[in-house]
Amino acid sequence: MSLNPQYEEIGKGFVQQYYDISDYPAYRENVVHFYSATVSFMTFEGHQIQGAPKILEKVQSLSFQKINIVITTVDSQPTFDSGVLIFVLGRLKCDDDPPHSFSQIFLLKPNGGSFFVAHDIFRLNIHNSA
Amino acid sequence: MSLNPQYEEIGKGFVQQYYDISDYPAYRENVVHFYSATVSFMTFEGHQIQGAPKILEKVQSLSFQKINIVITTVDSQPTFDSGVLIFVLGRLKCDDDPPHSFSQIFLLKPNGGSFFVAHDIFRLNIHNSA
Repeated sequence: MSLNPQYEEIGKGFVQQYYDISDYPAYRENVVHFYSATVSFMTFEGHQIQGAPKILEKVQSLSFQKINIVITTVDSQPTFDSGVLIFVLGRLKCDDDPPHSFSQIFLLKPNGGSFFVAHDIFRLNIHNSA
Repeated sequence: MSLNPQYEEIGKGFVQQYYDISDYPAYRENVVHFYSATVSFMTFEGHQIQGAPKILEKVQSLSFQKINIVITTVDSQPTFDSGVLIFVLGRLKCDDDPPHSFSQIFLLKPNGGSFFVAHDIFRLNIHNSA
């Protein structure tokens, strides 16, 4: 159980790679390789699913063609099991929709020499009332 | 290593308790009791600190008197070490400032029959450009 001193670089590198893949419709499904087949949790706009097959279904169900993601901030913290907790604040624009602010959290766990996404929570920063 | 089936209730209960305390200037410093003296990480608007004494300093340095916090959503996930990952989206209003959207992440770890905040990341949802 130890802290990974490279947590900042790991967090920023992961975020760059993740959203680069998400940006391209033809490659978007490849984000599933970041998740475990069984244990990874994803909560997408309040809907919780578990495991890469269900996460792939969710990604495939997204109906937009083009997405443009601009990252505002990336905050990373090391966890004591050599993982990295990442918080992303950004904006996204799908097709001709207006841009939206969003938040996404990733908890990366070490897996051999690499990492997988053990936890993923996504929310558009939309509030119900004025 | 196991999932706590009560993660939803634990997440919501913690968030309620945490912001109830934060709301009252006279009690605000008591949030420090949620953190470990040594291992807890807090990242507040990009500034990272570790351990309850430094977190107390940070809380004491906040200059507003009144704060009004309205929670929009709470998303919780169980972690395999019986902890809970919590994402809070809400709005806050300090004194006479305009209201701001904010995001806060807590990673709770079990500690005897209770929990402590091992990780805390806070950001106002402010984007640098239009």
